[in-house]
Amino acid sequence: MIVYIVRYQHEGGTHWGVLREPAITPIPGDFASTGDLIRGTSLAALDALRGATVDLSAVSLLSPITRNQQFVCQGANYRQHMIESGVDPDVKTYNMIFTKASSCIVPADADVVRPQRVRFLDYEIELGLVLRRDIRGACDVTDANLHEVIAGAVIVNDYSARDVQIPEMQFYKGKSFRTFGPVGPRLALLDAESAGLLRRLDLRLTVNGEVRQSDSTANLVYGPAETLRELSRVHDFEAGDLLSTGTPAGCALSVPSPIKQRLAALLPERKKWEIFLAAQAKRTQYLRPGDVVEASIRSRDGRLDLGVQRNRIVAER
Amino acid sequence: MIVYIVRYQHEGGTHWGVLREPAITPIPGDFASTGDLIRGTSLAALDALRGATVDLSAVSLLSPITRNQQFVCQGANYRQHMIESGVDPDVKTYNMIFTKASSCIVPADADVVRPQRVRFLDYEIELGLVLRRDIRGACDVTDANLHEVIAGAVIVNDYSARDVQIPEMQFYKGKSFRTFGPVGPRLALLDAESAGLLRRLDLRLTVNGEVRQSDSTANLVYGPAETLRELSRVHDFEAGDLLSTGTPAGCALSVPSPIKQRLAALLPERKKWEIFLAAQAKRTQYLRPGDVVEASIRSRDGRLDLGVQRNRIVAER
Repeated sequence: MIVYIVRYQHEGGTHWGVLREPAITPIPGDFASTGDLIRGTSLAALDALRGATVDLSAVSLLSPITRNQQFVCQGANYRQHMIESGVDPDVKTYNMIFTKASSCIVPADADVVRPQRVRFLDYEIELGLVLRRDIRGACDVTDANLHEVIAGAVIVNDYSARDVQIPEMQFYKGKSFRTFGPVGPRLALLDAESAGLLRRLDLRLTVNGEVRQSDSTANLVYGPAETLRELSRVHDFEAGDLLSTGTPAGCALSVPSPIKQRLAALLPERKKWEIFLAAQAKRTQYLRPGDVVEASIRSRDGRLDLGVQRNRIVAER
Repeated sequence: MIVYIVRYQHEGGTHWGVLREPAITPIPGDFASTGDLIRGTSLAALDALRGATVDLSAVSLLSPITRNQQFVCQGANYRQHMIESGVDPDVKTYNMIFTKASSCIVPADADVVRPQRVRFLDYEIELGLVLRRDIRGACDVTDANLHEVIAGAVIVNDYSARDVQIPEMQFYKGKSFRTFGPVGPRLALLDAESAGLLRRLDLRLTVNGEVRQSDSTANLVYGPAETLRELSRVHDFEAGDLLSTGTPAGCALSVPSPIKQRLAALLPERKKWEIFLAAQAKRTQYLRPGDVVEASIRSRDGRLDLGVQRNRIVAER
């Protein structure tokens, strides 16, 4: 069973609804956050929900993840992406975790603002997983019980200012600018059986129609179960929190080979970053105002379809 | 004017109060979060608050910062600490920002749990600043108007698992373990005049009575105003959010000299971290179960006194 949830504005109010394209059935009740919705409803009841509908074209979609939730991310988590970065994906040393400020969350069709200080704006399509329940201590998550911990899935685009993120070492600031986190358009709520589809979803991202990223969640290095198993031993989660699982190869960012990285490390910091930035300046793949980025995630058989994100890049005024 | 706020448990309930040692005057009203308290009260009204009191010894203090708030941190932000890390504090290249998971926040007298996987547990005394109001866009914060953005100050100890934080590059995980964020014991709310004291506070941390860290906020490299000026252009803040301003020199962590770091960068990753961990293993300063860490922050004249934190280190069972 799969139920698609949307959050939207309609006639001056904010609502949650079950999406059966092109109809939305409003969900009765008042849920201030994604966590409240997940805690306050059941998959069976949402699936059975009937009643008057509104048309998708008549509403303005919001992100199904509200900004009070944690936005936790994995880095370098696809096999090909790791190989291109000079890392052997079969030698798993650690699962890189960082966060984005939740205020970067915007609807799936939002304009993405390139800040004045940013030259190298990049895209990162990612599968986002949404927590079903609070986690308050060690939790032995496995592929078999993953559906008890994960409520569903959503598309995330982890937009990144590479000229801030990379030279400043800590990823948080360069990935937290306002509008840098389109999440949606829909949240797919899954049961035990359909949660298995998460292991074989196709991700595809285009810029102005040209394919830049195309991979399958089959190539994730650290899967959701082992990631949550580890993180449950570090900190708490709330129902509705977002875990974004990393992006495949194909970003604009060009990572120097391991040998070049080692040689660059011999240089003074300032010189090292001058060379890095000069190399990035040659990459025509970085996003410019007017570019249109489209991102989709679905199972090959079409059973699970997280929809399409579409962002226009605009310059900060 | 300075008003000291505490949050505490007493007779089965959670309360906020004004602390005039050793008496606590309960604050009327129901405030679910630090932000709600700050938005819902005024400094003048809190200062004038009178009525029946409870004795400090009769209550159990909680952290004055609730776990729904953002916990944003600065790295490498004291002059001597930067010099010891081989960085010239007068050549300001960037203000390093990362986050801790808010679920690490515990009371100022909490036991700190060293996780089983962690060998190198370190302390970091820091001045924490608490936001007075929401920030939704670029904000021209200066020393002169800082009090309009900052409500007050609190002691933070940014406990860190160096064997997770450093080899994994991103600081979030190694600094987010449960109990790794004692915040309190009291929140000092400041007015325009007393906010000037933030620029000359003495920080002091001891382990089993031995002084390990001792410095003054006069030696901060990136001050609160310029930090918030920059971050207001990146993401939102809510009233009650916590900005922890970095730690002085004196931690257990030994950072290799810049020359050693450059040479180490030539080694394979695995070898590089083996050498790093072997060097840390010789540092007897790392915390062990049974150690007691005490941290205090106050102005030399005693006018502003954020109290004392006292944490016992315990092993994870």
